Amino acid sequence: MPTINENFIKIPATYLFSEIARRVSAYRSEHPDVDIIRMGIGDVTLPLPDVCVDAMIKAAEEQRSVATFRGYGPEQGYDFLRKAIVENDFQAFGIEEDEVFVSDGAKSDTGNIGDIFSRDNKVAITDPSYPVYVDTNAMGGRAGQFLNGQWSGLVYLPCNESNRFVPELPAGKVDIIYLCYPNNPTGTVLTREQLAVWVNYARDKGAVILFDAAYEAFISEKDVPHTIYEIDGAKEVAIEFRSFSKTAGFTGTRCGYTVVPKSVKALSENGERVALNKLWLRRQTTKFNGVSYAVQRAAEATYTPEGKRQVRSLIDYYMDNARIIRQALQSIGMSVYGGVNAPYIWVKTPDRMGSWDYFDYLLKEKGIVCTPGAGFGASGEGFVRFSAFGEKERIVEATRRLLR
Amino acid sequence: MPTINENFIKIPATYLFSEIARRVSAYRSEHPDVDIIRMGIGDVTLPLPDVCVDAMIKAAEEQRSVATFRGYGPEQGYDFLRKAIVENDFQAFGIEEDEVFVSDGAKSDTGNIGDIFSRDNKVAITDPSYPVYVDTNAMGGRAGQFLNGQWSGLVYLPCNESNRFVPELPAGKVDIIYLCYPNNPTGTVLTREQLAVWVNYARDKGAVILFDAAYEAFISEKDVPHTIYEIDGAKEVAIEFRSFSKTAGFTGTRCGYTVVPKSVKALSENGERVALNKLWLRRQTTKFNGVSYAVQRAAEATYTPEGKRQVRSLIDYYMDNARIIRQALQSIGMSVYGGVNAPYIWVKTPDRMGSWDYFDYLLKEKGIVCTPGAGFGASGEGFVRFSAFGEKERIVEATRRLLR
Repeated sequence: MPTINENFIKIPATYLFSEIARRVSAYRSEHPDVDIIRMGIGDVTLPLPDVCVDAMIKAAEEQRSVATFRGYGPEQGYDFLRKAIVENDFQAFGIEEDEVFVSDGAKSDTGNIGDIFSRDNKVAITDPSYPVYVDTNAMGGRAGQFLNGQWSGLVYLPCNESNRFVPELPAGKVDIIYLCYPNNPTGTVLTREQLAVWVNYARDKGAVILFDAAYEAFISEKDVPHTIYEIDGAKEVAIEFRSFSKTAGFTGTRCGYTVVPKSVKALSENGERVALNKLWLRRQTTKFNGVSYAVQRAAEATYTPEGKRQVRSLIDYYMDNARIIRQALQSIGMSVYGGVNAPYIWVKTPDRMGSWDYFDYLLKEKGIVCTPGAGFGASGEGFVRFSAFGEKERIVEATRRLLR
Repeated sequence: MPTINENFIKIPATYLFSEIARRVSAYRSEHPDVDIIRMGIGDVTLPLPDVCVDAMIKAAEEQRSVATFRGYGPEQGYDFLRKAIVENDFQAFGIEEDEVFVSDGAKSDTGNIGDIFSRDNKVAITDPSYPVYVDTNAMGGRAGQFLNGQWSGLVYLPCNESNRFVPELPAGKVDIIYLCYPNNPTGTVLTREQLAVWVNYARDKGAVILFDAAYEAFISEKDVPHTIYEIDGAKEVAIEFRSFSKTAGFTGTRCGYTVVPKSVKALSENGERVALNKLWLRRQTTKFNGVSYAVQRAAEATYTPEGKRQVRSLIDYYMDNARIIRQALQSIGMSVYGGVNAPYIWVKTPDRMGSWDYFDYLLKEKGIVCTPGAGFGASGEGFVRFSAFGEKERIVEATRRLLR
């Protein structure tokens, strides 16, 4: 009889969003008249930019005729999209088109990237974090055993008030480091100087940084890098993940990409330094068949002048929401982080309340749903996350209730 | 320094299609006037059915407005599509909606399914075969070493003239068996009776069958099963992969699905029988974020009465091509297989010529490009594959040249 990948059953079920749904539903059934405002959601609410819809429709029409029909595309993405990506975001840093791999999203790529690494690598992950980093390393056998709420094999890098959410360099040896900036869930960032510390560390110690920049478009401050390749030497040690999901509202449309510079290498058993670009190309050409042509045309449209304006207006809308939330919470004396370069606001619970207790308080007393920070890792305990994705009128109503 | 997944560099580069391209290009540069007909291609050439384009455009328009916008969808696919799939193809066999997982294609799923199994499983693969089965098991560490053109850890199941392309049951123990019927590349099938032998074997020995039914829509004969679940007991031992690629021309649109019945189980270390449905759900919800909403609506449209008619007419067109190719080759005395329930025709080379030699002969003497069978595995040597995907006029012209 076949045997299963044992790591799968070591992973505790993620109760975070189902538990939120359960509590909201229970409260709603007891109080059917309460108008509940959802600020826990990490999904966009504004529609796709018109340029994207137009491009998708044009591409779909092309698929109707023999003369313009497209069958299998390149697994790594069409040249038109890779070219637009490089020209707009990476040319200044020497990134080339064959270093960009278009995919169906950053979740797939941050999850699948483990395929190209051996099981023996020591992995460091900031805490709190996007659960995919932890769970996929657990599935890949790199996390050891799950004991007392943490994985024995992972190196956790706490991000908390005492370090101002800037993780400290690991004490022991690590091979792979996940960094996500602007950060989900804390909304905090690293400045160029702070990120350079990590790039230099990776270069000195021979580590690879897996840099998740899905929220890059929300950056408003000048000293915050939009890509890790702004940092000298990053091209030798960093892989970067990008997404159109939060930028252009592609959460239901599905497109992202990963930058794997040819100069990023890892060791084979015989001591050879192997380019990870070659391995990721092999992984993608073997296990993936490219992104829908119409979706790639929609993504390309975000790089036109009009596309950039439309994307900018989506971002501005959400960041205005973030400002409103931040100001309201600060005005009632809460400790508030993030929300300046990211659509997430990370809030310390009052009176050392637990994340879930404060969640219950907000639900029952204010009719507001947030996300308990404990759901993102041990260091998230004592915090909740507010999301700026949502309708402005509802956000304003929520702040009225918070101030009441 | 990180270490790589060593299995990646054990895999020989797949030269098949690049070598074909190289030879065609070299010949063309010496003979620029020759009109070359490509019959090696495994990609569809007819455009998307109108119902699919219409549905995609309607869905794209919905994404333009707040009221109808869709963000993240369920990782396993929207209910509307899972429901249509079950109602049309699987209800008679007791398959339920939560046993269907919509994805971006059968290549991804047949590649990623290995994630849920341990490395220790013994894997059997028919020879010749779709290279993804072999390469992804090699990446996953289940193939051993590559020696003399084969992997030491895999069990190859030869399909050749002497067994009429019906693989024999393996002599030793195997845990996982890949079967693809109608077959790529041979175009051959198993009858219900022949497939039942495998289902019974899997039940007796406790193996799991990974059944790739991507070419199911091309079946024309009554005694050929469209799904493995037509066979009694298959629901306890088989996972089935399906695709809209060859059915409805979705090779560039990207949608497929995988059926994982809840009754298919594998062992954990403590001897528990774990449902693979639960593990695949975990895999997909952790490493995948669903298929583009517009693409799922396009797939759904293939199940409307008009959609079925349009899909049928695509299949009929290609199968008429297949008939033309078969008859031409038979009329010149070739040994011809497939092409009755599949868009591929598998042809024995004349005079024991090697696959590549016959490829060169057809290219240089007839201006026809086929695919050398040796590229699909050792048992493919001495055969070439003709594809029925293509423009009828070109297919007819090719047969004129063959008969000349």
